[in-house]
Amino acid sequence: MAMAGAEWKSLEECLEKHLPLPDLQEVKRVLYGKELRKLDLPREAFEAASREDFELQGYAFEAAEEQLRRPRIVHVGLVQNRTPLPADAPVAEQVSALHRRIKAIVEVAAMCGVNIICFQEAWTMPFAFCTREKLPWTEFAESAEDGPTTRFCQKLAKNHDMVVVSPILERDSEHGDVLWNTAVVISNSGAVLGKTRKNHIPRVGDFNESTYYMEGNLGHPVFQTQFGRISVNICYGRHHPLNWLMYSINGAEIIFNPSATIGALSESLWPIEARNAAIANHCFTCAINRVGTEHFPNEFTSGDGKKAHQDFGYFYGSSYVAAPDGSRTPGLSRSQDGLLVAKLDLNLCQQVNDVWNFKMTGRYEMYARELAEAVKPNYRPTIVKE
Amino acid sequence: MAMAGAEWKSLEECLEKHLPLPDLQEVKRVLYGKELRKLDLPREAFEAASREDFELQGYAFEAAEEQLRRPRIVHVGLVQNRTPLPADAPVAEQVSALHRRIKAIVEVAAMCGVNIICFQEAWTMPFAFCTREKLPWTEFAESAEDGPTTRFCQKLAKNHDMVVVSPILERDSEHGDVLWNTAVVISNSGAVLGKTRKNHIPRVGDFNESTYYMEGNLGHPVFQTQFGRISVNICYGRHHPLNWLMYSINGAEIIFNPSATIGALSESLWPIEARNAAIANHCFTCAINRVGTEHFPNEFTSGDGKKAHQDFGYFYGSSYVAAPDGSRTPGLSRSQDGLLVAKLDLNLCQQVNDVWNFKMTGRYEMYARELAEAVKPNYRPTIVKE
Repeated sequence: MAMAGAEWKSLEECLEKHLPLPDLQEVKRVLYGKELRKLDLPREAFEAASREDFELQGYAFEAAEEQLRRPRIVHVGLVQNRTPLPADAPVAEQVSALHRRIKAIVEVAAMCGVNIICFQEAWTMPFAFCTREKLPWTEFAESAEDGPTTRFCQKLAKNHDMVVVSPILERDSEHGDVLWNTAVVISNSGAVLGKTRKNHIPRVGDFNESTYYMEGNLGHPVFQTQFGRISVNICYGRHHPLNWLMYSINGAEIIFNPSATIGALSESLWPIEARNAAIANHCFTCAINRVGTEHFPNEFTSGDGKKAHQDFGYFYGSSYVAAPDGSRTPGLSRSQDGLLVAKLDLNLCQQVNDVWNFKMTGRYEMYARELAEAVKPNYRPTIVKE
Repeated sequence: MAMAGAEWKSLEECLEKHLPLPDLQEVKRVLYGKELRKLDLPREAFEAASREDFELQGYAFEAAEEQLRRPRIVHVGLVQNRTPLPADAPVAEQVSALHRRIKAIVEVAAMCGVNIICFQEAWTMPFAFCTREKLPWTEFAESAEDGPTTRFCQKLAKNHDMVVVSPILERDSEHGDVLWNTAVVISNSGAVLGKTRKNHIPRVGDFNESTYYMEGNLGHPVFQTQFGRISVNICYGRHHPLNWLMYSINGAEIIFNPSATIGALSESLWPIEARNAAIANHCFTCAINRVGTEHFPNEFTSGDGKKAHQDFGYFYGSSYVAAPDGSRTPGLSRSQDGLLVAKLDLNLCQQVNDVWNFKMTGRYEMYARELAEAVKPNYRPTIVKE
């Protein structure tokens, strides 16, 4: 049967190794759209990445020249990583180790000219929600506005003139001390620009997250940064086309999708969903997944009839960027920490919009009406019978 | 640069030829999800397909056994084909030749036990909308209720005990003689069950269809057939996630997507969109495209700054079926007429729904509200600034 672990590095590496060049070009065209130019990243960045043992890749998405607008170039950075310490290490030590790891990767991103960086979902902790235990995992929750991780990210942002998207477990002490799955957006000035919350919460297998937090209540905010308008669609929101749509209607040009997802459940969906969202909404999407297997101190069951066990499954990395024209970067490795740098010309969003016109032809009034009807308890679907 | 024509048969054939078996299995797992069993179709069906010079493939999608429901097995057939006569042949002869071609393919489908068959978009004509000429192309329009093509399909349906989905150019003489892009759904009894219309009309390049017909006014009907609940999302509606969603909310278990789309424009989007819709809506989707290059008698331009020419581009076939669990069949050939038979257990829809819960977690009330706001002329999107 198919493997599920780290032995197989990536789809792209496999295709490059085995296919003759003309076939490889056709396969890439059908799978990825037009071929992207590799970015010429600085040698010291590759050296630092190699020293720190993470993968570094860079690609450029280009747009046509226009008369009235200059190219709107932004470099985004996507970070995927393992948790460096075991899940039974003291909470404070785990957080510190993650801060150190991310700091090293962000320094390389800065060498590569990254303007906006996004970390993986709940990046300061192991993805422990599968355990359904509260302590010690809820101790990883922090204030979005002035918790230690936000302060850490503010320093990074200011030092490197970089927008930082920091997805954390949030404790909201001003509203009854509840937890949320939140992304904090920090401006390149170092100021907290705002926060956004995970809008759709899974009830799937080991994703027992509804034990810890509820659906987000902040709607679909878009953050106007110096480098472009961004939104954050956290993890399971990736499966909900309306979630992507509302961020896009509100003006997002880049939608980050920090995630934590495992091979057996979703690996064949992963290349489809964020890329479909880039196509359907004329925007860039950045899908980020963590890496490796996380082992927990106590055993738990997964609602699948199987014996109790102590790990969640294999997080397969494979982070990638997709463009409004349907093209995409290769995925980062399935098995290694990594930084993916993508140079985007945001003019491409409007250019593709003006070619394909999905918003113009979207008939949203009709759907607003139909959806409002469909949610009524006495709704009768239109079913034609003989 | 990448090819655009028929020389390259299919992605799947290329991968099978070059990849060593363990790698091939991993590539298939990442690209297609779980591997599907090939259907054991009758030898006389393959012989007839070979005699008639079209490709025949068959795959089975399986579901888990349940205690209270028996498997709900349905065999669907997807037909892709070239137009057999040149576009400047007399209209009646072109239609007759297409009727003959389809009859031959449907007979093979009947040998394979197909219960529901769907033809490509505007199957009785060349896809002449790129010309923007009215005559002779509007002469291909027929009554959906009792035009010659509907009568032809009623005979096929009754003879073979098969539901027939017949996408045609419709002339609606009871409402001002206007044209529509319509799919007629004919019950296996031979009765016309109803019709459904293309909800989103492209204004893209050579897809000048808005010259001929407007957005459909029949909403999102679902047809209850003896073999399951089906809908038809015609062509460009594939790019609109809300269109798929409303068919699914109304109860569709299988959504057909009869299309006409060309390589340069959409080939890298093709494997993404219908498959994403199957995943997002917990249903089966059947994406059908025509094959070959169609040449027109008069030259036309395409709004792309290029010289006038007489063909639209290369229709790349590649029809496929995708399942709610994200798995999919290989595509039919890029260059040959074909019949794809898929055996579906419709129980899989509810099973995947109960695992992933995208409808339960969909928050449609929120989106109905947000969309209703967003379409207002004075809508101010939620944009957070520093």
